[in-house]
Amino acid sequence: MLDEKLLSIHQATVLQQWTLKQAIAGIERAGLGAISVWRDKLAEIGVGEAARALAGSGLAVTGLSFAGLITSRDKAAAAKARDEARRAFDDAAAIMAPSVVFVAGGVDPGDKDVKAARARALEGLAELVPHARALKIKIALEPLHPMICAHRSVLSTVKLANQWCDALKAEDVVGIAVDTYAVWWDPDLEESISRAGKRICAFHVSDWLVDTQDLRLDRGMMGDGVIDIPGIRRMVEKAGYAGYREVEIFSARNWWKREGDEVLSVVKERYQTAV
Amino acid sequence: MLDEKLLSIHQATVLQQWTLKQAIAGIERAGLGAISVWRDKLAEIGVGEAARALAGSGLAVTGLSFAGLITSRDKAAAAKARDEARRAFDDAAAIMAPSVVFVAGGVDPGDKDVKAARARALEGLAELVPHARALKIKIALEPLHPMICAHRSVLSTVKLANQWCDALKAEDVVGIAVDTYAVWWDPDLEESISRAGKRICAFHVSDWLVDTQDLRLDRGMMGDGVIDIPGIRRMVEKAGYAGYREVEIFSARNWWKREGDEVLSVVKERYQTAV
Repeated sequence: MLDEKLLSIHQATVLQQWTLKQAIAGIERAGLGAISVWRDKLAEIGVGEAARALAGSGLAVTGLSFAGLITSRDKAAAAKARDEARRAFDDAAAIMAPSVVFVAGGVDPGDKDVKAARARALEGLAELVPHARALKIKIALEPLHPMICAHRSVLSTVKLANQWCDALKAEDVVGIAVDTYAVWWDPDLEESISRAGKRICAFHVSDWLVDTQDLRLDRGMMGDGVIDIPGIRRMVEKAGYAGYREVEIFSARNWWKREGDEVLSVVKERYQTAV
Repeated sequence: MLDEKLLSIHQATVLQQWTLKQAIAGIERAGLGAISVWRDKLAEIGVGEAARALAGSGLAVTGLSFAGLITSRDKAAAAKARDEARRAFDDAAAIMAPSVVFVAGGVDPGDKDVKAARARALEGLAELVPHARALKIKIALEPLHPMICAHRSVLSTVKLANQWCDALKAEDVVGIAVDTYAVWWDPDLEESISRAGKRICAFHVSDWLVDTQDLRLDRGMMGDGVIDIPGIRRMVEKAGYAGYREVEIFSARNWWKREGDEVLSVVKERYQTAV
């Protein structure tokens, strides 16, 4: 049996069904104790009210998604994006989230240069470190699937996240989020996770459906796809991670269409059988 | 100016418009000299007639797509798949294609074990080598995009293709096909292509559209996406490749809906401006 106290519900899993307050109530109704927050949902009611609602609940806040998208080659646009990332860090601090998921940003169509986009993301990250450090918020570098490299994140592997951590020399502030959906295919995964070690500060789970129909919004419930999720969980645990397992399922065609209570009921069951 | 003699039209680019005979005529009408053959198109008229049509044309045959899908954990199914791959090699020999693209196959939902699927693909490949050697057909290992790892190919990177080549010790028979669409996102691409060196026996080009809508059939015309195709061409050339540039664009929503002649006219133009 996995410890249910370490099960956190990422709001993405019930993104279409529930506001933040409804999600808090729904997660408590399910007898669970942790939530990972989607930043757009904060904006709906204002971060102050959101912070009060979360603090007044019995739930632990395990993370905030997301900050980033800082790869533009336009200097003014990139500076603005970094400022927005700092505001996301502020939000994380306000809701007492220990970390913010960092989503790098895509390739700038103006130069079509993925290498340059990666360099800009790394440089921009270095500029964000002091603000995160001041707030005691961890920046969780999240490698995302190569299929969203063009428009969403040029950080495509755990290996590259390790290289960025090496370059940043800010281990107190910068960690790595491992998402099963994004990394399961990687031939170097075991080695890269082992090397990441204590850098791993978040672990997200969902499954890859064989008949996947969308590049972002067709994730599967754990057990419904082909990812060896327990295998990857064991890898991160062997590397030293002992934190929450966040269930993050973007699912426009299935889970977002169901009642939130039903979704959480299935999540609880699959947490024991397929995580 | 790139040498137009090295431009080969992969039948996938005009898959919905033209039969093999129509493609031969269309490519000749466009003033081009090379075709890469889609195996299902051979089956439509029989390999004998197809071979005669190709031999009777002025076109060079640069490759055959594809053989593979040998990752089943069911021994009988895997043996049957290997036999089918050998028949594909026979077809390649019949049409005087120098190589057959090898598409590994996906993850078996029965064990959800990508590592085991890779091991089975490699073992199966070893069994296919003698038949290819006898026919003097090259097996072109084609790393495919990680987004089709689950159902199509567990060979996800050029690095892994190099490792398979190392293990097979059959450099005379096994090479690597580099497809810009499949590998452009890879942080280790330059190093892996350099290591591949003379193993590279095919080079496929198409572009990644920022608003990609399908995991297999939404490739873009060179120049319409964010891949630095000339940059990758220079990498393979630096590694020693001097062969054909095959244009392979699966495009259900755009190019397959246009007249074949129009498609080839755009391909010819983009070959000079975006390859």
